[in-house]
Amino acid sequence: MDNISNLFNVKYPIVQGGMIWCSGWELASAVSNAGGLGLIGAGSMYPGVLKDHIKKCKVATSKPFGVNVPLLYPQTDEIIDIIIREGVNIVFTSAGNPAKYTSLLKENGIIVVHVVANSKFALKAQSAGVDAIVAEGFEAGGHNGYEETTTMVLIPMLKEIVNIPVIAAGGIGSGMSVYAAMALGASGVQIGSLFAGSLESSAHDNFKQEIINSGDGSTYLTLKQLVPVRLIRNKFFERVHKAVLEGRSKEELSEILGRGRAKLGMFEGDIDEGELEIGQVAATINEIKPVKKIMDELISEFNATAGRMKNYTQL
Amino acid sequence: MDNISNLFNVKYPIVQGGMIWCSGWELASAVSNAGGLGLIGAGSMYPGVLKDHIKKCKVATSKPFGVNVPLLYPQTDEIIDIIIREGVNIVFTSAGNPAKYTSLLKENGIIVVHVVANSKFALKAQSAGVDAIVAEGFEAGGHNGYEETTTMVLIPMLKEIVNIPVIAAGGIGSGMSVYAAMALGASGVQIGSLFAGSLESSAHDNFKQEIINSGDGSTYLTLKQLVPVRLIRNKFFERVHKAVLEGRSKEELSEILGRGRAKLGMFEGDIDEGELEIGQVAATINEIKPVKKIMDELISEFNATAGRMKNYTQL
Repeated sequence: MDNISNLFNVKYPIVQGGMIWCSGWELASAVSNAGGLGLIGAGSMYPGVLKDHIKKCKVATSKPFGVNVPLLYPQTDEIIDIIIREGVNIVFTSAGNPAKYTSLLKENGIIVVHVVANSKFALKAQSAGVDAIVAEGFEAGGHNGYEETTTMVLIPMLKEIVNIPVIAAGGIGSGMSVYAAMALGASGVQIGSLFAGSLESSAHDNFKQEIINSGDGSTYLTLKQLVPVRLIRNKFFERVHKAVLEGRSKEELSEILGRGRAKLGMFEGDIDEGELEIGQVAATINEIKPVKKIMDELISEFNATAGRMKNYTQL
Repeated sequence: MDNISNLFNVKYPIVQGGMIWCSGWELASAVSNAGGLGLIGAGSMYPGVLKDHIKKCKVATSKPFGVNVPLLYPQTDEIIDIIIREGVNIVFTSAGNPAKYTSLLKENGIIVVHVVANSKFALKAQSAGVDAIVAEGFEAGGHNGYEETTTMVLIPMLKEIVNIPVIAAGGIGSGMSVYAAMALGASGVQIGSLFAGSLESSAHDNFKQEIINSGDGSTYLTLKQLVPVRLIRNKFFERVHKAVLEGRSKEELSEILGRGRAKLGMFEGDIDEGELEIGQVAATINEIKPVKKIMDELISEFNATAGRMKNYTQL
């Protein structure tokens, strides 16, 4: 089967997104132990903290795991150096130029995947020599593309122009949508929100509860003048978004946004004043579950969908 | 098979969206003749014009066809009256309260489908007694929901809460995505953009050419303060959207928008100053084709996807 299980040497073509404040060694190792690919999210870690999480992850699982690195922090060189020295062999890069680190990582025998949201960066990533891309749709949580292309449109569009595997992200909340993504041409999926709300996620319980409470329209993409980000519509969101609607300048928006808001909300649990990054699919998450149960359900839902779709051998 | 073919008595579970300035009798009858369900779009027609299109459609096809009625025009009573008197037996309603006309239509033996973009209206439509709903995602062209929920998330979410068939709309541009939508739980699909750009579409050739020219990020959802609408980013769009970003008032936006812009762009072919409504999936449309060819390709792509997905009997 043409899927990413072989590329990563894992049982299921399911990657857990390396999310800030959620994806520590506990989450990554739990996903890898359950047969998926767990990712440590370096985006919210100082280099020393990342090193510690990698070491603990190695103890907690004998299965492959990786690290997600947003390429926009000043400490990226140091982060990449730690990853290489610790012998991590899978790296997902995001939010930056894939040309910058791909060769170095590949020279060190590391499998490299880059996250994109449009065709320009898909082609750039392919040229940089990555092994696969994550194609992240508009419905995904957190930072997002300017084009606002949804998963349903993005996957077939990118599949058409690249010849490396495309991993679908954004809106994947059940085994049914894993199956749908693969029907669209994806070789696997990256799932964020479901795992952000899992038992092993290092996010604060208050944030997990907000994920459970989310419904239709609870999240919204805002701050498009800076970097578009999908957030839960809490008190902080409404203040920021009001400023956006009033047409405030980038500088004013940056000031209202302030610093450390994601940590405040997602890690410290201030659900009113923190920045709560989650995908639209939170609307369908109703329980905080252990990773093993989430994975088991994904697999059985996928298989049930495959069974149901057997009836449609042809139209 | 649990699909809408039985409900509408057509061969394929594929509905052609009843789009303003595109969906006259030529398009509707061509789709119905090719085995789908063609819809005449009453939204851009005076009552007398609609009557004429219905009469011509009856001559052009012996297959079932329907009419799409946006419930927000002053002449809706008259439109509904013509539909009943002309013996049309399928009506899709949109943009308004489904409770208002559903009983009257049902009493006259008409199958009623209502277009929704969120769970509130899905439940409202079901309570009003409609036979099915169209669930239209954020990626769809033209007017759109405030929640911005994408097709990937919307279909499973609505499927979970209603017990009538859900027809997927938004982002459906190939047989692969028809298959994916049905994997997500849809009982069929409604396709707009592909047919807007077809040979039989009554849209102006200049507009069709703009659809062909569209790429990644060519469309954008704007005017959220009034009614959100997805448009091609032409000169007119940029002027309107600049005003949106500056935080102008509803009154100012209405004035900049003006009247008759959709007709100017889509029907009269002024691609700079007209309002060009189309879905994100326009990015993957590369040729103006006759309806028969579009339908044949949808079916063969669907069947090829079913064949490919046979390998995934279980994960």
